[in-house]
Amino acid sequence: MNFADIIAQIRLKKSYLCIGLDTDIEKIPSSLQSASNPQLSFNKAIIDSTRDYCVSYKINTAFYEAQGVQGWEAMEETVKYVGNTHFIIADAKRGDIGNTADQYAKAFFDTMNFDAITLAPYMGKDSVDPFLKYQGKWSILLALTSNASAADFQFISNDQNFPLYKSVISQAQKWGTSKNIMFVVGATKTEYFSEVRKLIPEHFLLIPGIGAQGGDLAEVSRRSMNSSCGILVNSSRNIIYASSGDDFAQAAASEARKMQIQMSD
Amino acid sequence: MNFADIIAQIRLKKSYLCIGLDTDIEKIPSSLQSASNPQLSFNKAIIDSTRDYCVSYKINTAFYEAQGVQGWEAMEETVKYVGNTHFIIADAKRGDIGNTADQYAKAFFDTMNFDAITLAPYMGKDSVDPFLKYQGKWSILLALTSNASAADFQFISNDQNFPLYKSVISQAQKWGTSKNIMFVVGATKTEYFSEVRKLIPEHFLLIPGIGAQGGDLAEVSRRSMNSSCGILVNSSRNIIYASSGDDFAQAAASEARKMQIQMSD
Repeated sequence: MNFADIIAQIRLKKSYLCIGLDTDIEKIPSSLQSASNPQLSFNKAIIDSTRDYCVSYKINTAFYEAQGVQGWEAMEETVKYVGNTHFIIADAKRGDIGNTADQYAKAFFDTMNFDAITLAPYMGKDSVDPFLKYQGKWSILLALTSNASAADFQFISNDQNFPLYKSVISQAQKWGTSKNIMFVVGATKTEYFSEVRKLIPEHFLLIPGIGAQGGDLAEVSRRSMNSSCGILVNSSRNIIYASSGDDFAQAAASEARKMQIQMSD
Repeated sequence: MNFADIIAQIRLKKSYLCIGLDTDIEKIPSSLQSASNPQLSFNKAIIDSTRDYCVSYKINTAFYEAQGVQGWEAMEETVKYVGNTHFIIADAKRGDIGNTADQYAKAFFDTMNFDAITLAPYMGKDSVDPFLKYQGKWSILLALTSNASAADFQFISNDQNFPLYKSVISQAQKWGTSKNIMFVVGATKTEYFSEVRKLIPEHFLLIPGIGAQGGDLAEVSRRSMNSSCGILVNSSRNIIYASSGDDFAQAAASEARKMQIQMSD
């Protein structure tokens, strides 16, 4: 899905919602636990009930890897089930050197048909380049993350008083463009959005941290949007675990719809 | 495998060799391509022929993920096949926040029985803590990597003239100890080993970059060892692809043995 396609979907649905499929086997309603693949059954029900309200799904690889081969199968099948109507993100936070990065790119863009992958930038350009070779695919680099200990390293300033997260944003602009790179900026870091937008007015931002982590949708949107929207706001737990009962899919739809309505204003 | 067990294995085998199972399906000899799981068959043959010469195997997750479900299965079965005689490292370079890191720890330490996992430190303490909760397991943090673009961020200095890789080493000492944390320092960065050893005289270092990437075993060892050895030196391609013919396992054994002999001096 290219830049224009994403924008078109956002306009069509009046939504820039990304739903995070952090599907924890222990939080799946008991009625689904006897399914041949509970994670997949849960995801299918969530996708069926929410696909009109969101433009993107983000699959958090950790929750599938924890279930071994069956989890990996659930991930592969979930990507297929979503299809090409939504922007599908592998929240994998991979990051390794050249020949290994080639293999990760193959895994997520070729073996599976994700549109995008999140990447940790610690190893620099070598670890991102192999992903940028894929036409129509996206690399989403961690810049300023939503967690408390983001400050351990991301605010370390260089001799020009440029914190690490800005160095990442600044360097990455030499590697790719606003048509194949996005950045993660956490919803809990709203005071930094204006700084980020000075460096990258055009790029899409993937913004996690709404809801469970404390970010506020209205404030986040106001501070981070650009003229073509330019943001994907992720919500995971608030939507997919809105109910722990058999009405989980309807409850998820209701939460997703609430966010979509807020976004349509 | 705890600190004392690793040291005991190193003394027993007169080796601190770690063999990297970066098993690329396209480099597996044609005679194995018809096996039900070619990656697994290849790994078993390599392990059988090399296990006397090394103390550790490092499984590079990317090469397995690129093969989808069958690759994940090959990884799980390889870990079981190695057994508890060797220190088994998941070279996964994961790094994510709390509840997601919990799931990665479950995947690699519980669902699979790895002894250690490599972690990217960009997100700070939150992304490492969940792994440190597992008794007898290890977190191996990227500090100074062997690739060319390591310099993009790892040498960015803070206001005390402390480059990022040293901040990582220094911070991480508050999170764990030399009994549950190791650091990756690339073999191509020998001029920095003395700096690293000033900060962490006791910790184990995992050192990739020998061979294909240009690092020299003798020089690396001389500059990085401590009194209890304190290093695991990884070689992947030079060993596992020593021959592309049906004698690949013998050729791998021969290369591994050469390194073991050098290490025994």
